[in-house]
Formats: sequence, structure tokens, C-alpha cells
Amino acid sequence: MSRVITLLTDFGVESTYPAQMKGVILGRCPSATIIDLSHGVPRHNVRAAAFMLASTARAFPPETIHLAVVDPQVGGPRRVLAAETCGQVFVAPDNGLLTLASCGGFMCEGCAPPVRFYSVENRAYFRTEVSSTFHGRDIFAPVAAALSCGAKLADLGPEVDSITRFNVPTPDRQAGAIRGEVLYLDPFGNLVTNIPATMLEGIPPETLGVQISGALIRGLSKSYNDVPAGWLLAYVGSAGLLEVAVNRQSAASRLGADVETPVRVTFPVA
Amino acid sequence: MSRVITLLTDFGVESTYPAQMKGVILGRCPSATIIDLSHGVPRHNVRAAAFMLASTARAFPPETIHLAVVDPQVGGPRRVLAAETCGQVFVAPDNGLLTLASCGGFMCEGCAPPVRFYSVENRAYFRTEVSSTFHGRDIFAPVAAALSCGAKLADLGPEVDSITRFNVPTPDRQAGAIRGEVLYLDPFGNLVTNIPATMLEGIPPETLGVQISGALIRGLSKSYNDVPAGWLLAYVGSAGLLEVAVNRQSAASRLGADVETPVRVTFPVA
Amino acid sequence: MSRVITLLTDFGVESTYPAQMKGVILGRCPSATIIDLSHGVPRHNVRAAAFMLASTARAFPPETIHLAVVDPQVGGPRRVLAAETCGQVFVAPDNGLLTLASCGGFMCEGCAPPVRFYSVENRAYFRTEVSSTFHGRDIFAPVAAALSCGAKLADLGPEVDSITRFNVPTPDRQAGAIRGEVLYLDPFGNLVTNIPATMLEGIPPETLGVQISGALIRGLSKSYNDVPAGWLLAYVGSAGLLEVAVNRQSAASRLGADVETPVRVTFPVA
Repeated sequence: MSRVITLLTDFGVESTYPAQMKGVILGRCPSATIIDLSHGVPRHNVRAAAFMLASTARAFPPETIHLAVVDPQVGGPRRVLAAETCGQVFVAPDNGLLTLASCGGFMCEGCAPPVRFYSVENRAYFRTEVSSTFHGRDIFAPVAAALSCGAKLADLGPEVDSITRFNVPTPDRQAGAIRGEVLYLDPFGNLVTNIPATMLEGIPPETLGVQISGALIRGLSKSYNDVPAGWLLAYVGSAGLLEVAVNRQSAASRLGADVETPVRVTFPVA
Repeated sequence: MSRVITLLTDFGVESTYPAQMKGVILGRCPSATIIDLSHGVPRHNVRAAAFMLASTARAFPPETIHLAVVDPQVGGPRRVLAAETCGQVFVAPDNGLLTLASCGGFMCEGCAPPVRFYSVENRAYFRTEVSSTFHGRDIFAPVAAALSCGAKLADLGPEVDSITRFNVPTPDRQAGAIRGEVLYLDPFGNLVTNIPATMLEGIPPETLGVQISGALIRGLSKSYNDVPAGWLLAYVGSAGLLEVAVNRQSAASRLGADVETPVRVTFPVA
Repeated sequence: MSRVITLLTDFGVESTYPAQMKGVILGRCPSATIIDLSHGVPRHNVRAAAFMLASTARAFPPETIHLAVVDPQVGGPRRVLAAETCGQVFVAPDNGLLTLASCGGFMCEGCAPPVRFYSVENRAYFRTEVSSTFHGRDIFAPVAAALSCGAKLADLGPEVDSITRFNVPTPDRQAGAIRGEVLYLDPFGNLVTNIPATMLEGIPPETLGVQISGALIRGLSKSYNDVPAGWLLAYVGSAGLLEVAVNRQSAASRLGADVETPVRVTFPVA
């Protein structure tokens, strides 16, 4: 049985480019199950894509093949990577897209082995004619199809030691305060921070304060409806990270906050 | 063989939240066929979702499992429902979402038995860790996967007698006139009323008048092209209900009409 | 095993109309694999749909069934077509939608035989009740399902000799210059012309000039990153046609160009 393939791109939900990739996959591995992660990555935004990929891949069964194409350098010398990490398989350009998926989560504590990266160079797995603008269709899709139908990662090209990563901001906990920042804006304007729930352990939720963009939120809520519509709240979101939202509205708009906006959590020193 | 699962949410066509639900489903029922009903429900709009669900579910084969997550009270005390009604299976929060799907159509004339509702409480079918903000992934998706791969509704929790419903406006027919209202705006701005075609039986189509927002439409058309581009028309739409549209434009914009706008059909008394 | 079915419509990515078509397909051919080509065709734009269909269908395996519903004349007298052409099968209204798919590419050099067209008239393949506004669900979907599960094209209705086509502009090459025009705007604002790469053969890429909307682009690039962000470039795109783009921006906005905008390629006479 073939393995599930997921697709993440910035091609837009209205374009036919994802369908062209699916056509190539089905031509080479007809039994593949193909699932869209999203085609709504903000155009060329590798950091947003890295978050979307890492937070979504973990919901899939082991050995799923995640094909991610946010590739502003297509046609240039950037490598194509295949990776085995955290129990999943990834195929993506070597531009930072695998930064979060390959480090075991948003704090990058590392995955259980094996963690292996390969430079995809074996043209036997590519389409016969490779365009210079659409490697998603001509390289990434047939490679993923081959993996789904049984090819081994080592067949694709040489193992490599290191890949391109962007700097992942690490939250800092000191007596009475944690400093972090916004890591991702979801489509509703909820602000996902880089502060994991595990860092809040031992702090009574009602004693905690969250400062962001001049606002102070007191206490940790469980869910949106703990506060009236239009109110700010802080809570542990579905990715296991501290989030800031406005019930039924956009916190990003309300606060003028964005990725990299600083967040400060304060709590009483025991 | 596993049963088809459909997904209806207000998560937006660009978000990765539907994909997270699909990952969970495939992890628990790898053979499930998953179909998107829509992820474009207007945010938190339970009434629109109820119409979209009821009008679309009926096109699917019997025993399809329809998973609908428009859930502004997530994390609060609202129940999770599983339902067997009108030959289909539904899993949804108990907030009115099943109002139209469970009453046998838009006039709520009732389905053939069995019609059964269950309160989903058996945590053996949930993910091990349940977030307080994303029950779609942590409760609804694994429950639907279990049903697709063979679980029985009665395994999920106790049968319940009644569910939350919103008031469904019933059109009123008297001598020479039917009073109804707009039930749903489709994405093109077509106005779907609550007046079923069956209520128009016996009225010669050319004698009928439709009044809405100060406009009067004379006669019933078969399809958009019966009138020139830009003209108003009334016709029986694909859901079996009277609709008002503008050929190649939006009737909602033209008329300033919305859900609950009154509609009056007049016809000669025989 | 059933054959892949693709769907192309202008119903919008947020509507439930595509899902209604899928429900009908799965009810009649449960093993069908269904792939969305796109539901984001600009509303009623048959020419854009014809390009999207032709350029995407060719990525799919032979004998895929492509169901295309951009159908402003629904309910009127236009025929429903089924076609076998260029190794693929198409089901579409007879309104020009198959113009590019059935002529073997954008220069219409013709496909290898067989090329056959049928008028779909056999109501045994339709749903029992056919609405006058949604033939996608009531005629096209069940016909595609039947083909996927084994029906023959000749079962659907009589073979016909000719179909509705729009005029396909043919580029003109003379000594030192090629005159063409914009054929399609992709969702990023890239301008796809009707000038095929084969017409540029033998011209040294660095000697070529592309004139469009008062701009002159010198030389042919390989990919977007050959020029700085914000710069114009000309290149052979993934459909095998000359394209004009702005790296990381919209060329359509920058140049005020649209479908039918003239394009002139100049080169030194050998």
C-alpha cells in the first residue's frame, strides 16, 4: 500500500498548479492518497510555511510524505531536500522550510533518531523535461510519488549533514518573567507565540500576566468563550504554545501585532 | 470498506486546521475517503452552516459521515452530538448546526426513521490529549474516523431525546399569497428562500409574482439565461426552493437583501 | 479499477456546489478518485477555463476524466459534450470550453487520433430529477461517474463532427519579429502569451527583445531569480509558452496588461 502524500504550497487556492502536481503524482503512483495541507501560505513566506508544516505534519500518521513548495529561488542553485525526521518524511527546497519540522518542535528540543537529510539529485526520479519555473510539478511531485510507492530516501541522492535553517527565537525564562515573541499569525488573526505550555508549568494560571503591544492580559483562559466577544485572552493553543486572541475578532488587527512582536509573561516569584 | 467522511468548517480555505483533522482521521482509519463540503462557512455562522450541510449532505450516498465544525463555544459545556437521520450520519457540536439536516429538509417534514441522537462522551474515541480550542482535531475527527471504520453510534455515548435547534421559519400560504423569507445567501449572491417548490404546485408559473425588497418579479424562470444579463429572476433552485437571482450578478447586492429578508409570492386565486 | 475524475468549475472555493457533485459521483462510482483542478475560474470566463483545463489536463495520466463546468448557458439549449482527445477524456458544456484541450495544445497543431466528440443525451446516465440551474450535479457528475466506472463514450449519445470553439489567436513569425498576445493571466499576475517555446528555437536568448505595454525586456531569463525583486523578465513558462512576469510582484498590475494585450518579440535577422 502506498503512503499518504500531503501538499503545502503558496500557489493559492484558486490556481491549477497544485492540480498539476497531483496529476504527476497519480501518473506515477496511482494508489497514493493526496491531502492538501494548504495552498494559502502567504506568497514566498518561508517562515509561515515552516510553522504551518511543522504544526500540521505532527497530526499525520508516521511515514507520511510531506511535500512543501514555497520556493522563491526556483531555478537557482538551491538544493532539493528529502528528510526523515520526527517519524515523518519531508521533501522541500533547502531554504529554511524544514527548520521547525526537523528540530522536533517549536523549541527545537530534537527528534528521536533517525534524523537524516538527503540532497535530491537522481534525475531518474524527475520528469523527463524539467521546466525552470515549476519544480513542484517536475521534481518535487515525482519524487514524492516515488517515495509513496516504495522508493528509499537513499535512492534519491547523497546524505548531507546540514541544511539551511532560519534562526528560531528561543524564549527566555527568568525569575518572574518569560520573554518571547510572536511566531505565527493564523488566518483568524490569532497570535501564536514561541512560548511552549511546558514553560508555564507550575505557574498558577490566574496569577499570570501577558504583555503585548501595550496591552496586559491577566490570567490564562481555557478557550475563547471564557471571555466576552471582543475581549482579549491568552491561552494555550492547539499547537501547545501560548496564544493571544480576541474572542470572535482578530488580535493581530486589534493590537497591531505581527510575527516577531515581543511578548512578555509575568508571574509571581514563588 | 470504510465509509465516506465529509468535512464542513469555518476554518477558512487557507488554514491548515482542516488538514490537521484529516491527518488524525487517516491515522485512525487509513482507508477513509475524505471529501471537503466547504471550509468557507462564514465565521461562526451556524445558520449558514446548517443550510450548507443539509443541502449538500443529501447528494451523498447513504450512511456517509458528515463532520461539521462551526463551534464558537468550543471548550465550553456544549455537548458533542452524533446523529443518524435521513439516512445519513452527522457529527457536530450541539449548537443548532443539525437543525435542518435532522428535520428532513427545509420544511422540516421529518425523515423516515430511524432518527437517533447520541451525546458523544466516550473518551476512548478521543485523542489522548484534548486541547480546549480545537475539538475538531481532538474529538470530532477521531470520532468520525471510528465511525468510518466500523464503530457504532451507540458506542459513543448515551442516546438523547432532544438537541439544540434554531427556529426554522415556516412559509405561510393563504389565498393568493405565500409569505416567506430568505434562508441563505449563496456565494454568488443568489437568494435562497424558505419557500419549497412543492408549495408552488398548481400555480401557472407565468401568473406568479415575487416581491422582495421593493422589487416585483413577474413569472417564474427556468434558469438564469431566460433573462438578459443584469436582470432579476425568480426560479426553483437546485435545493428545491424558490430562489431570486440577477443573471451574472449578485441579487443580494442589487436588492440589499439578506437572510431573513421577507419574500412575498402572489398568484391569482383559482 | 475506476479512473481518476478531475473537477474544474467557477463555483468558488468556498461554495458547497463542488461537494454536491462529488457526493453524486461517489454514490455512483464509490471507488473514483476525485481531484480538484480548480474551483477558482473567474466567474463565467470560458476562455480562462479553457486555458486552465488544457494546461492542467496534460499533467494527468492517460484516460483521466476531466469534468469542466463553466456554464453560463445552463438550462438553455447548449449541448453537453463528452470528448476523447489527446489521450484524455473531457465532459463539458459545448460553449468553447474544450477549444484548447481538443486541439493538441496552444498552437492547435492537433492531437494524435482518436479525436472523437459525443453529444451527451442518454438520460439513463443523468440523475432522476434534473434541475434547470445545476447540471454540474445532475448531468455532468453522474456522466463522469459512469465513465470512471466503465461506461463507454458511445453509450452517452451520438458522435458529432464539430463543437463550439472560440478563435485561438495564432502568433505570427516574420523576419526579425514575432507578433503574439497575452493568452492567460495566472493568479500571480504572470502573463502567459500564445508564443510557444518552439517558435523561439534558433534565436540566441540574449539577443531577444520582448515588447509589451510600452516596456522592453532584453534577453530571455531562465527563472524569476535571474532578476532582482521587482524587475520585469521574460522566460519560457511551465506550459511551454513565453511568459512575462515581475519577480515577486504582479506583471499584470505593473504593465496594465490583460488577456489580448499585444506582445512583440524582436530578434536579429541571421
